[in-house]
Amino acid sequence: MTTESVSLSSQPPTVVVSPCAACKILRRRCADKCVLAPYFPPTEPLKFTIAHRVFGASNIIKFLQELPESQRADAVSSMVYEANARIRDPVYGCAGSICQLQKQVNDLQAQLAKAQADLLNIKCQQTNLLALICMEMAHQNDEYIM
Amino acid sequence: MTTESVSLSSQPPTVVVSPCAACKILRRRCADKCVLAPYFPPTEPLKFTIAHRVFGASNIIKFLQELPESQRADAVSSMVYEANARIRDPVYGCAGSICQLQKQVNDLQAQLAKAQADLLNIKCQQTNLLALICMEMAHQNDEYIM
Repeated sequence: MTTESVSLSSQPPTVVVSPCAACKILRRRCADKCVLAPYFPPTEPLKFTIAHRVFGASNIIKFLQELPESQRADAVSSMVYEANARIRDPVYGCAGSICQLQKQVNDLQAQLAKAQADLLNIKCQQTNLLALICMEMAHQNDEYIM
Repeated sequence: MTTESVSLSSQPPTVVVSPCAACKILRRRCADKCVLAPYFPPTEPLKFTIAHRVFGASNIIKFLQELPESQRADAVSSMVYEANARIRDPVYGCAGSICQLQKQVNDLQAQLAKAQADLLNIKCQQTNLLALICMEMAHQNDEYIM
């Protein structure tokens, strides 16, 4: 199970070509104000096929209609990402990646805590060593004076 | 945006009560071999409502039918987890948690690398300090002998 890097800062294409990939796959007329068209251009049919296979067209449309236009491109990106994860791993999907990342966070936190404890320990040792050297030097100075 | 802990090792209930929450919500007859019944007991209607709202009943059934029975409980758990994440965060869903966890992993890796570099550095200093003390002691011994 691998965790892909997520990039969610996508922008909708400025030119909308009709019919969009969604309407072509759903075999329906692509209206002027098609809610899917800005995010599913005809050049990327797989993007819609994958999202449709996991969420279903009606759910995708419903989700997009419930969001302001400025957030729709990000919502489509995250849905396509999740759908890809579900197809790659039909049992765990995105939740599998979350489990794996949570485990990695826990491991790293434990390693960091150990490294910080080691650092504190060695710093104490160094302070003691320096104090010893200072004492030794002061002792030698005393001997020279006497 | 918070990242909930994921537990994916669920087991289907041994006793199947009919009609299951899914068939009750879908207003259909719950057959003896209903594929949803073992994972959506009538006592937890919200579990199905949430998964249905995000994936749709037909997709959930299709996903489960494509999996061996031993993996279906985990698949339902991960779908319910993902559906909850999508309802909580309609723009980023689970992918948002993955982004956040990836950022946390990157931060921890950077902190760990720094702590390990600091540790190596202070160990070098300590080795030099010990060498200095040994040299000093050897020098003092020489003076005593002379």
